[in-house]
Amino acid sequence: MSQHDPRLDAVLTRIDADLDAALARLSSWLRIPSVSTDPARAGDCRAAAAWLQRNLAELGFEASVRDTPGHPVVLARTPGAGRRRALFYGHYDVQPPEPLEQWRSPPFEPRIVTLDDGRRAIVARGAADDKGQVMTFIEACRAWKAVHGELPLDVTVMVEGEEEVGSPNTPAFVAAHRDELAADVALACDTSMWDAATPAITTSLRGLVYEEVTIRAADRDLHSGLFGGAAQNPIRVLARIIAGLHDDSGRVTLPGFYEGVPETPPEVLEQWRGLGLDAARFLGPVGLSAPAGEKDRMVIEQIQSRPTCDVNGIFGGYTGPGAKTVIPAEATAKLSFRLVGDQDPLKVRAAFRDYVLASLPPDCTATFAGHGASRAIALPFDLPDLRRAAAALEAEWGRPAVTIGSGGSIPIVGDFRELLGVDTLLVGFGLDDDRIHSPNEKYDLTSFHKGARSWARILAALAA
Amino acid sequence: MSQHDPRLDAVLTRIDADLDAALARLSSWLRIPSVSTDPARAGDCRAAAAWLQRNLAELGFEASVRDTPGHPVVLARTPGAGRRRALFYGHYDVQPPEPLEQWRSPPFEPRIVTLDDGRRAIVARGAADDKGQVMTFIEACRAWKAVHGELPLDVTVMVEGEEEVGSPNTPAFVAAHRDELAADVALACDTSMWDAATPAITTSLRGLVYEEVTIRAADRDLHSGLFGGAAQNPIRVLARIIAGLHDDSGRVTLPGFYEGVPETPPEVLEQWRGLGLDAARFLGPVGLSAPAGEKDRMVIEQIQSRPTCDVNGIFGGYTGPGAKTVIPAEATAKLSFRLVGDQDPLKVRAAFRDYVLASLPPDCTATFAGHGASRAIALPFDLPDLRRAAAALEAEWGRPAVTIGSGGSIPIVGDFRELLGVDTLLVGFGLDDDRIHSPNEKYDLTSFHKGARSWARILAALAA
Repeated sequence: MSQHDPRLDAVLTRIDADLDAALARLSSWLRIPSVSTDPARAGDCRAAAAWLQRNLAELGFEASVRDTPGHPVVLARTPGAGRRRALFYGHYDVQPPEPLEQWRSPPFEPRIVTLDDGRRAIVARGAADDKGQVMTFIEACRAWKAVHGELPLDVTVMVEGEEEVGSPNTPAFVAAHRDELAADVALACDTSMWDAATPAITTSLRGLVYEEVTIRAADRDLHSGLFGGAAQNPIRVLARIIAGLHDDSGRVTLPGFYEGVPETPPEVLEQWRGLGLDAARFLGPVGLSAPAGEKDRMVIEQIQSRPTCDVNGIFGGYTGPGAKTVIPAEATAKLSFRLVGDQDPLKVRAAFRDYVLASLPPDCTATFAGHGASRAIALPFDLPDLRRAAAALEAEWGRPAVTIGSGGSIPIVGDFRELLGVDTLLVGFGLDDDRIHSPNEKYDLTSFHKGARSWARILAALAA
Repeated sequence: MSQHDPRLDAVLTRIDADLDAALARLSSWLRIPSVSTDPARAGDCRAAAAWLQRNLAELGFEASVRDTPGHPVVLARTPGAGRRRALFYGHYDVQPPEPLEQWRSPPFEPRIVTLDDGRRAIVARGAADDKGQVMTFIEACRAWKAVHGELPLDVTVMVEGEEEVGSPNTPAFVAAHRDELAADVALACDTSMWDAATPAITTSLRGLVYEEVTIRAADRDLHSGLFGGAAQNPIRVLARIIAGLHDDSGRVTLPGFYEGVPETPPEVLEQWRGLGLDAARFLGPVGLSAPAGEKDRMVIEQIQSRPTCDVNGIFGGYTGPGAKTVIPAEATAKLSFRLVGDQDPLKVRAAFRDYVLASLPPDCTATFAGHGASRAIALPFDLPDLRRAAAALEAEWGRPAVTIGSGGSIPIVGDFRELLGVDTLLVGFGLDDDRIHSPNEKYDLTSFHKGARSWARILAALAA
């Protein structure tokens, strides 16, 4: 269908011709170290927001940087023309770049590299997650505007700066700007392709509960020679708590944890088996071979349809070089739970905290900090816009788009559904080897280029 | 006996008169941040050694700084006069001062403070462990030399710079300098009083095995949303390993761990019960109430006569502020085992490493670094020099000296016994509230002053 639309063809040609300039624009955005979790980077977050606001204003959007109690949100709208309206979502904040010594080039100095297999990619923190992906959409808009003076439908853009810290202020922001954000369909670009040749639309997402817990025992650090054997050791206490979160079969032990977890229908399991995503294929590229999750589940279930619990960080006591014989006063862990189906994030959080408190030996206390809690979400398979977007993707990539579930969490999708009554099409061009959240994050130039072309097509398809 | 010795009385009077100058000397030594575990402090370690060498040379010692593969050793001897010879041991290296923010004044800017109960103390890293204690002996020598032109017996001083990192080079140093170190009795000042009014001689010490273990899984950090549930998490693996080191009764689970652990005779247990060192008295001052060790042992057994295992540090994954959804590639823990009786440190180390390797799930590897391994040691109760030193202490403090066991480890004592054939009298003036290895370490001025007086008396007593 869309490949025979001469208006669209001109836009695609424009995207092809403008690729180098588009990469230069992306690079300039990537140079801003907008690490949302680091208070010292608040000014950089604001600068990244201002950068995007200027870009959108140049394209004819009414664009502004809106304050929140945290990092600001970029909100932009094309002047209303009474047509269908799409709401695009992305985020300008990035993960911390640490450990810095593992980067082959500085994380905020973008570089075009050629991979071993000949693919070319842009390397920088945020290249794939999410600045590069956001720019695929912006560049599609830029091309439409350059060729035709307008977009094929009305568009609202909302790009936030706290996605990597659990979007604590975003639900309130969406609720407070319901009118400005009203749309017929929402779009987001923060997900992956099925593989480098096969586009995908993510139709389900796991929810997330992120908890930080600190165990305290003595009121000071103690000498392990003098007090060892008699004094509670918070690292030991924390280790027992973490060890007790899973049983030997890999299941999470929290009471009620599996309430609301749906069983995947046999026909879907059959389809998943056909995808051939076995342990070797999924884990091999990162140096692993054996699935570590529930023993009676396939890898694809472990990462898509089953809830999980992981420890994301731990620290306590002496962590420098050599030896120090201390029993520390405290130890801290950061844990996250991925949720599916109807699991209630607040119930999971409460069950975790109850478990920790019940596990404390005498003289120990636990304090908690919550860093986000969101439900899982699933898109109706029969959504017309889903079929339109899938057709547009097939036209660009020459293969049917796969509809998949994702193990990741994008809380905004639930907020849009709940607060705006709109479904979100999750279309992204990331690849499994993009190293998002890791050193040497990259985004394939093919993802960037064909991603922009894909959005140009999807905009046309949704306008229809 | 010694209090009626006019030669000694003049020395004690000199110590009293010289106290302020002695404190100034100690302060100048404490200003040198000789943190042995920190490679960046190697120059400061050497400076601390040179400082002591100069002081000893001033007192008529033939003093030199001897190189080792690590930090140097200060070795000093009074010219031989054919009398009995005492070998004094101490260490000039100190623990890292971290966490710095918990110090009320900078750790290497010594300060005289008045405690809440009116006691005065000098506050600095190393004030009690071990520079202040070493200086009690040096000041006693200084007073003897000033008043009488010589010490009452021949003295050798050996002060090392790697005690806080397990003295890795000290056994070889002692073996290589057997002739220079030959002595009739060894003395060390790195232990504590029974309480602020009661002197003590430590006659038994726990041994130490210090291990660092790193668990690795994937070859990079992973996104816990994409990989969570399927990828091995090294923090979880490490937590299970740590949790499995003790059973529910508080016993260490390593096979063979309790081989060589002697049962304390019933009459000694009875004596210990009489000391009244219950949980409230021992743990109360540091904010604890319940003993955390083997459930069927008294607190005093847990810290003196029973072996232990503690985690001294742990780190892995994201440890900064806020949230990062990473499954780290690796996680590390530092653990120490305190040994008693005839426990073999090398067997304990091997049992630990075997246990870790046997606990590894698929795709995980473990690497180890050993930071020291020493046997426990016990002094014969009928040693004549022990009775002489105890009498000298009683003369100074007006109370009988208690002979105690210590939970700490001073590996040199075993080296002296094994390589020089000499027993070591462990006489120290530390107090339980000295906060050694913790922020705001202090040494009571009473410990410093009466400590020097005690050594002046002990030197006379050992000469007899």
